[in-house]
Amino acid sequence: MEKEPSIHLSLEQVHQLSYRSLLACGCDQANARAVADTITAAERDCCHSHGLFRLSGYIASLKSGKVNGHADPQLEQLAPAVLRIHGDNGYAPLALQRGRDPLIGCARKQGIAALSIIHTHHFAALWMEVSALVEQGLCAFAFTAYMPCVAPAGGSKPFYGTNPMAFGWPRKGVPPMVFDQASAAMARGEIMLAQQAGLPVSEGVGLDLNGHPTTDPGAILEGAQLAFGGHKGAALALMIELLVGPLLGERCSFEAAEADNGDGGPSRGGELLLAIDPARFGDPDHWADHAERVFTRLLEQPGTRLPADRRYQGREQTRLHGIKISSTLFAKIHALAGITPGESFLHQ
Amino acid sequence: MEKEPSIHLSLEQVHQLSYRSLLACGCDQANARAVADTITAAERDCCHSHGLFRLSGYIASLKSGKVNGHADPQLEQLAPAVLRIHGDNGYAPLALQRGRDPLIGCARKQGIAALSIIHTHHFAALWMEVSALVEQGLCAFAFTAYMPCVAPAGGSKPFYGTNPMAFGWPRKGVPPMVFDQASAAMARGEIMLAQQAGLPVSEGVGLDLNGHPTTDPGAILEGAQLAFGGHKGAALALMIELLVGPLLGERCSFEAAEADNGDGGPSRGGELLLAIDPARFGDPDHWADHAERVFTRLLEQPGTRLPADRRYQGREQTRLHGIKISSTLFAKIHALAGITPGESFLHQ
Repeated sequence: MEKEPSIHLSLEQVHQLSYRSLLACGCDQANARAVADTITAAERDCCHSHGLFRLSGYIASLKSGKVNGHADPQLEQLAPAVLRIHGDNGYAPLALQRGRDPLIGCARKQGIAALSIIHTHHFAALWMEVSALVEQGLCAFAFTAYMPCVAPAGGSKPFYGTNPMAFGWPRKGVPPMVFDQASAAMARGEIMLAQQAGLPVSEGVGLDLNGHPTTDPGAILEGAQLAFGGHKGAALALMIELLVGPLLGERCSFEAAEADNGDGGPSRGGELLLAIDPARFGDPDHWADHAERVFTRLLEQPGTRLPADRRYQGREQTRLHGIKISSTLFAKIHALAGITPGESFLHQ
Repeated sequence: MEKEPSIHLSLEQVHQLSYRSLLACGCDQANARAVADTITAAERDCCHSHGLFRLSGYIASLKSGKVNGHADPQLEQLAPAVLRIHGDNGYAPLALQRGRDPLIGCARKQGIAALSIIHTHHFAALWMEVSALVEQGLCAFAFTAYMPCVAPAGGSKPFYGTNPMAFGWPRKGVPPMVFDQASAAMARGEIMLAQQAGLPVSEGVGLDLNGHPTTDPGAILEGAQLAFGGHKGAALALMIELLVGPLLGERCSFEAAEADNGDGGPSRGGELLLAIDPARFGDPDHWADHAERVFTRLLEQPGTRLPADRRYQGREQTRLHGIKISSTLFAKIHALAGITPGESFLHQ
């Protein structure tokens, strides 16, 4: 892997490459730009697994017709503190962008508000949508479900998705505290990497096809992943299924899998966002300083760091050095999208 | 332990014993009744660690004057979807009872609503307050923090409380799905039991005073507990600190410890409840059936059960056989409260 030639890109070039590829494969400008924004934000923070690496999946779903590249997401108000975006069967980013300002306004007015996103295809990291809310001074949660791969507590077959949950807290003068964590003990991509490297994974990561604990990554990929922290993580995975399935009226993980065409792109599903305005909770003048005292006290312990710190370090590295992607991936994207490298860097 | 003589009590007698003891130690009727309701519900579901066992802590805090036994909690509306109860420095149960109906009404009207509980002393399990909301057809979350005993990710000294989070989902015709789980990998009480029994605990439960992983329960009690699932559980513990501390304008775990008088009763702190009305989320006719399909599908896997099932089995056992407490505990409660066994069973 180290020896593979790599290509340096600026963030603007990452955006151009994504945007042009999506445009070439059936996205309209608004959808292509929203997805390209998402891919670029992932690359900026060195979350490469959610960056250009995902373009092939996005492209596959456009080509198969599963995803509507011309989606025109529409906002509805379901209750004074509940908004909904119908994603028109497109990718989630445009739906999320259209819901963001209404959700922020609603949370500021009501104190707490929810945004239901339905009929979208979610293929990105939740920290992005949470960060966008938190950077406006709100505290926010996000929940989504995804294809079954995690066994329920006591069970041995995939049922839950990796089911991430994200939470963010605004900070003064520094980037927000945001975590975004799957209910699975280990990311599926990391298990695949261990398999490729011929290395075992830790106990508690998964079960083989017969439901027995194993540290063999290949056996786990055929069997089932486990939730983090045993039954407690599994309870969170169940909570997330209920929130994004029955609550929103969208598909749970097992329903998404049954309905999906298996083209390699994201299945249709929902997402729930909750936004809270700390200024409406009774300590409007002190909540931010109070939180800073918590962070200061926490970080006095050697070895500690705040969630997202590694991502912010990645962001700084990108600012200094730009992005590096493998020439193989670079060529693959152009081939899939049917464009030439020159085309991908033309200005919009 | 098995050989110790035990005393059989009905749930009514559990309530009487609690009520009379609290009344004798400085609670007014409303506060005594609310705490007795809480203790009785714990005993009913065989959660003995939160039942009569806790009376000595309640009594200690009344006697030391830390807790106001005549608290008169007051409701305020902070925003259209945010309510707050100021607990008047009393125990949490009366504050929670007074906030319940307003929160339910607010969630039905707004779709989602929050209840902030401040200036209370919380010493019970969160599943109770979540269940009370969920039994009214709402989906609900609860969060609270408690005395530092869990190390942050990468750290080695207690900083977070055991920081439980509860979530509940309403069901048709059967008791609700409710989980209530600490951010700590293992309950402190269980570690104490392992120490008494001379048994090691699992890896990942805690660190010794030098910050080294250990399976020695005594060393962990002197050192620090760990969160479940490593850094992911620790991130949840941090989220809970931020929600019940800075958001509500109440004390975080480390602040509660610094301010507490160490009388053995609960420290002053806050609690956040969120209630969601699924009927306002866009699938009012199907959400309940949809969730039942999720539960059915999940339970098809051998070995699975839903969170709270064990508690509901305990409830059934209590219905059939009543409650059994050790004669030592029975005598200790009477001695602490300065009442005779006859007095504790007089009708109110």
